[in-house]
Amino acid sequence: MFNIRVLSQEQIKPIVSIKDAVDAVENVYCLKAEGKTSVWPLVTYDFEVGVSDMDIKSGYIGGLNIFGMKSVSYFSRNSSVGLPNLIGVLTVYNAENGVPLGIMDAGYITCIRTGAAGALGIKYLAREDATKLTMVGAGKQALYQMAAALVVRPNIDKIRIYDGLSTENAENVAEDAVRLLEELGIDASGACFEAVTDLEAAIRDSDIIVTTTPSREPIVMNDWVKPGTHFSCVGSDVSGKQEIDENILPRMKVYVDDRTQCINVGEIEIGIKKNVISPEDICGELGEVILGRKQGRTSKDDITLFDTTGMAIQDLVTAKKVLDIAEEKEIGTIVEI
Amino acid sequence: MFNIRVLSQEQIKPIVSIKDAVDAVENVYCLKAEGKTSVWPLVTYDFEVGVSDMDIKSGYIGGLNIFGMKSVSYFSRNSSVGLPNLIGVLTVYNAENGVPLGIMDAGYITCIRTGAAGALGIKYLAREDATKLTMVGAGKQALYQMAAALVVRPNIDKIRIYDGLSTENAENVAEDAVRLLEELGIDASGACFEAVTDLEAAIRDSDIIVTTTPSREPIVMNDWVKPGTHFSCVGSDVSGKQEIDENILPRMKVYVDDRTQCINVGEIEIGIKKNVISPEDICGELGEVILGRKQGRTSKDDITLFDTTGMAIQDLVTAKKVLDIAEEKEIGTIVEI
Repeated sequence: MFNIRVLSQEQIKPIVSIKDAVDAVENVYCLKAEGKTSVWPLVTYDFEVGVSDMDIKSGYIGGLNIFGMKSVSYFSRNSSVGLPNLIGVLTVYNAENGVPLGIMDAGYITCIRTGAAGALGIKYLAREDATKLTMVGAGKQALYQMAAALVVRPNIDKIRIYDGLSTENAENVAEDAVRLLEELGIDASGACFEAVTDLEAAIRDSDIIVTTTPSREPIVMNDWVKPGTHFSCVGSDVSGKQEIDENILPRMKVYVDDRTQCINVGEIEIGIKKNVISPEDICGELGEVILGRKQGRTSKDDITLFDTTGMAIQDLVTAKKVLDIAEEKEIGTIVEI
Repeated sequence: MFNIRVLSQEQIKPIVSIKDAVDAVENVYCLKAEGKTSVWPLVTYDFEVGVSDMDIKSGYIGGLNIFGMKSVSYFSRNSSVGLPNLIGVLTVYNAENGVPLGIMDAGYITCIRTGAAGALGIKYLAREDATKLTMVGAGKQALYQMAAALVVRPNIDKIRIYDGLSTENAENVAEDAVRLLEELGIDASGACFEAVTDLEAAIRDSDIIVTTTPSREPIVMNDWVKPGTHFSCVGSDVSGKQEIDENILPRMKVYVDDRTQCINVGEIEIGIKKNVISPEDICGELGEVILGRKQGRTSKDDITLFDTTGMAIQDLVTAKKVLDIAEEKEIGTIVEI
């Protein structure tokens, strides 16, 4: 019989900060680059294609002595009966003895660990003097991308928001940004948020571009992109998705979260399949840059890309942080299993 | 936020009977034969080869509208620090909306669903007049195999127990069997239990043979086996394991729990690899026999084999039964996640 800590989303939100997530994901990127992690094969299942599905991501962080799994289900009709469409559960185990440590809602952790990933691309690859960011996509994830970007680069003072599917979404995000970011503990009162419809003009005037859309067609075109720009491409995480024109890729220094995963399902997938770039053109995994084992940006004119597809080890490292804080603060329910 | 029921092994044991498990596994074999289940790819990882490992089995039972997963870790050094070597956790979800229903210890459920599998082979394939059973292997699983066998065939009155690794184990099991079975709710007072060292003599006088060893060499030889015998082979569940002489296979009507899994990792694996039999020689999955879609034994002289490798859907169906009983009896802890 073991004692296991159970945490709901409502219990997790107030105790973990965006900075906690950024620090945790930065740590796990480094552990990955040091060979101290393992990402296990993905299990996926379509209950009804396009309507309901499920996946199980799992892995091991040797450096932290934990392993675990995240199951996420998507039921598109849930919202009509008052349930969330996405439901995720994370389970964390001690990797020294297999003892279960905690089980928790995975929704908020997924949001913040994904924001952290995009931001770490910015932290390590964007120009030091970058101040203008364009968010491509104004869905739920946009907020967490902006929050984490402001944690790593508090000097960002202009954020443009574009949504090709809904101008209204972009307007709402721009309008509510300062308040919503404050709820996440981020002071964004010094930044200007603006919804835009002319994406080309925004890109031409941006230092940093974060894409987080479900697109399967390029949205950002090659000839809009000026030297010195950094891209964190977050949206492409299954085969066939694409957010930026593949013809930008040969102009870029390309970095990835996981080499194999990005080649197979990331933003660079299409460019590699079309032979616009080859896997040898990948400059490194971001963890290698963080550790100083691979070079990042070397000039103010480099165009850099961080292609992030997401890994269970990001969830696990963030969940471990949450568990540590919850233990210290005595949050959650301890149950016997 | 959802309410989820958490159950420990101590809470599960008293509320679920061996017959519950037999009925549940019988039901899921039928649902599988009707195409209403899905067994998802296995995830496995060796932390340290031969010393510590982990696997995640998962799947979907459409007929019962549940999906879920079982993670089982094995840490061989745990017993030296007072922890169990095997630790398993089962998570069950509603497959209509992804809502988590329960999380529970997987140890006892694994024991009884495995016993149920062996017994269902006996129920549907052994001769009606079978009364003499030989257990090959006197490890932990032997008890559950005997218990479930007595549920499906209460007229079994002679049980011989053989353990090639430890005669003492076999003697202990034989001595304690009536008491231990009574603890499981099985009246075995009418049966005679005997530890044996001469396996050949036991096999020659047996109607039913259940093998549950970790062997990688045949233990039961071809020329010992008389017409009319039934085998439930439970031990072989990873590639390379083997319990019975592959030369018995051509004399047998061969049934499996899952065709692909048995060909790859079951008792028939070696025989197929050595071309002693071919996959076409498999008479059917047991669920097809239960449903009457495939013929089982047709004569008192048939030698039958049920090769069972174990599937997550057996765990899930048993876990669902446990959850239903626990809800009715208000057992377990309800926590918010």
